[in-house]
Amino acid sequence: MILDLIIVGAGPAGITASVYAARKKMNFLVLTKDIGGQAIWSSDVENYPGYQFITGPDLMTKFQEHMERYGIQVKENEEVVELEKKDDVIYIKTTKETYEARTAIIAAGKKAKEIGVPGEKEYKNKGVAYCVTCDGPIFAEKDIAVVGGGNSALDAAIQMMRIANNVYIINITDKFSGDSIMQEKIKNNPRVKILHNTKVESITGDKFVTGINIDTQGKKDILDVKGVFVEIGLVPNSWFVKGLDKNEKGEIKVNCANETNVPGVFAAGDVTSVPEKQIVIAAGDGAKAALSAFSYLARLK
Amino acid sequence: MILDLIIVGAGPAGITASVYAARKKMNFLVLTKDIGGQAIWSSDVENYPGYQFITGPDLMTKFQEHMERYGIQVKENEEVVELEKKDDVIYIKTTKETYEARTAIIAAGKKAKEIGVPGEKEYKNKGVAYCVTCDGPIFAEKDIAVVGGGNSALDAAIQMMRIANNVYIINITDKFSGDSIMQEKIKNNPRVKILHNTKVESITGDKFVTGINIDTQGKKDILDVKGVFVEIGLVPNSWFVKGLDKNEKGEIKVNCANETNVPGVFAAGDVTSVPEKQIVIAAGDGAKAALSAFSYLARLK
Repeated sequence: MILDLIIVGAGPAGITASVYAARKKMNFLVLTKDIGGQAIWSSDVENYPGYQFITGPDLMTKFQEHMERYGIQVKENEEVVELEKKDDVIYIKTTKETYEARTAIIAAGKKAKEIGVPGEKEYKNKGVAYCVTCDGPIFAEKDIAVVGGGNSALDAAIQMMRIANNVYIINITDKFSGDSIMQEKIKNNPRVKILHNTKVESITGDKFVTGINIDTQGKKDILDVKGVFVEIGLVPNSWFVKGLDKNEKGEIKVNCANETNVPGVFAAGDVTSVPEKQIVIAAGDGAKAALSAFSYLARLK
Repeated sequence: MILDLIIVGAGPAGITASVYAARKKMNFLVLTKDIGGQAIWSSDVENYPGYQFITGPDLMTKFQEHMERYGIQVKENEEVVELEKKDDVIYIKTTKETYEARTAIIAAGKKAKEIGVPGEKEYKNKGVAYCVTCDGPIFAEKDIAVVGGGNSALDAAIQMMRIANNVYIINITDKFSGDSIMQEKIKNNPRVKILHNTKVESITGDKFVTGINIDTQGKKDILDVKGVFVEIGLVPNSWFVKGLDKNEKGEIKVNCANETNVPGVFAAGDVTSVPEKQIVIAAGDGAKAALSAFSYLARLK
């Protein structure tokens, strides 16, 4: 059976697209590795309008319940390994089977970027982590380092200064790029030590991480930390698509209607070339993508 | 004093923009006729992710509280009558005074379109209405007509079938353009009478509306109704801007970053050329516009 639509991913963009598709009575399903996407990594969401304050996991539970209310068919734990359009049909291969649809919305989000230094891969999940919300509590009362200077690094520091002992923020540039309001939250906290103009040279350890070698404009140092949170950005989960135009970051190029270069294939959220990565922006674009897919299908018939 | 930013309008787009601008510590204010925009006209909002069901006014109260939490300066009851950029400064004239800013976000929304038939202007607010949420209760137990076939017409019919006696839907085309899920809600309601391929010729009355003259493919008829809800679409509140490109509908043209043709002037929400008018889309674009304005300002300095 050829479906009207397949949505890949169930973060803010994919879930919103699914709610809109359900309201348009499209025959569709959602394929996803997990529910919530990168939004579940945020402890404090203060900029999703309608909720003055909510945690990322709580907001995503609300999104999920919204989706469930419409009885949407969601295939979890199905990672898409190939998506290609041939002769008017989009073939989407997962680790389990191949699906066919007339339209597709790629809302597969991003995954954390690695620093690429010695020790990082070796100590992954042994002190090196990429999600504070998931792994933060392991490092209660311990010294840790956060690598990065944007909102996700600041968010990680804010979370960790509440539970860790000392929190070093290792930022490669001379100032933070994250929101002022987040910078203020860490400013006067005695547990937070800020190291600007500093890069990570390597991560050391025995069975687990024991330290991090850093370089501040030529001055070398070793920080005795038990945890390293890498928050230097994300890479788009776009490797599985065939024939779609991407930008230099690997993000799928979309126009304002969330159309890709392949007719019938749409994309929304952090996997796309849309510059700002925000929950409300991903949700808005998910809605646009679903309505664009609906219009495309109406024109086909 | 020249502000960093002025936001015109406080519907979903303007409020979201204001929350983002506040988080970036911009020096700005919001000028608006009212709070909530067109969203307060919706009784049932079921497609704003995070809220399975909420009324438009309730959702906008939550948006407003979110804005108030940041102590944002909102000048209500200030209608903007002119917005123009001259020599790097944007001058925004209201009915009360003139403000100056480096950037502006126009999020002024839309207002209801009129049918343009005899009697419409005469009986406005005397039976002819443009907002069911606002005026619906006046027509409890009475016969009314809803003019239109899109989501707002269907929403009006759904609201009125719960409180009015008979609800005639007068749709000029041969089928509704609104969501299937909304069409289903009215389908089997005995109070709802659907008239497709029908146009309104005039609205009649004495002190108040007493009837509506219709034409169904040449067949004339008179419906004895006490109320006429005009739900045939909206026109953008864009008349006050000078030097901005607009499309044939009068909507301000924006690119994917919510930039207009005038550097420093941004627009978001239903006043723009973005094809789909939805709360979550307006909110997402409001966030984009604020972040674009912030980047523009950073480049200026």
